[in-house]
Amino acid sequence: MTAKGEARVRETIDALAQALRDKDTDTLMTHYAPDVVTFDVVPPLRVDGAEAYRRNFETWFASVRGPIDYEVRDLRIACDDHLAVCHHVARVRSTRTMGAKSDYEVRVTSVLQMREGRWLVTHEHISMPVDMQTMQAASGAGH
Amino acid sequence: MTAKGEARVRETIDALAQALRDKDTDTLMTHYAPDVVTFDVVPPLRVDGAEAYRRNFETWFASVRGPIDYEVRDLRIACDDHLAVCHHVARVRSTRTMGAKSDYEVRVTSVLQMREGRWLVTHEHISMPVDMQTMQAASGAGH
Repeated sequence: MTAKGEARVRETIDALAQALRDKDTDTLMTHYAPDVVTFDVVPPLRVDGAEAYRRNFETWFASVRGPIDYEVRDLRIACDDHLAVCHHVARVRSTRTMGAKSDYEVRVTSVLQMREGRWLVTHEHISMPVDMQTMQAASGAGH
Repeated sequence: MTAKGEARVRETIDALAQALRDKDTDTLMTHYAPDVVTFDVVPPLRVDGAEAYRRNFETWFASVRGPIDYEVRDLRIACDDHLAVCHHVARVRSTRTMGAKSDYEVRVTSVLQMREGRWLVTHEHISMPVDMQTMQAASGAGH
């Protein structure tokens, strides 16, 4: 676990966040392994592979007018030579295509593996907590 | 990333699942680092430390009559010398103290670090997907 290794992981997370803000799907997907397994904030339970995950981003980006305000909070990184894990809380603010403001928080865990000299995301888990009595999500910051 | 290392991570995940089934909080908590950061299925957004996480388990176990049927599906493990990541989908079936049957699926990502010769969970993320229109959780298998 070296400072240099951690810095390169942090660069990848920064690049991912910037691609989200820019709604730049092509740049975003360069950071995912083809066989990435995702537990996304929206159904289904599990998404297998980068092609399927790309469609989730495309659907999201198409629902938003202009850029996405994606704020990374409390980023923590742990890394070994070939494996790294990052987690953060993201505050996500945007304007929907119909004009409504959207403002919520999600928890994000990203797992990266070193492949051919680059860090690629091989697993991602994004969620909101759920009240088990009402089954309603607790969206945090706002609506 | 050795087969032996992976086998020891798998043993830890098996032990965690068995402690959940038995509602054995003391055994369960031996597998968590004191500074574990958790994104739990229920609010709040983030739980800091093993003592706070223990209270989540105690609340859950107190709401259930008899054992918990905790089924681990699609377990994947990646491990390096000092860091390991596991993810699975869990089907969770139980009987509530008031007699109602409970049956749902959650996604679980567990991060372990090797500390003083043992694997300890340093981060855990557990969730259900949420329909962003209705903000209702998609509980999967049942209710």
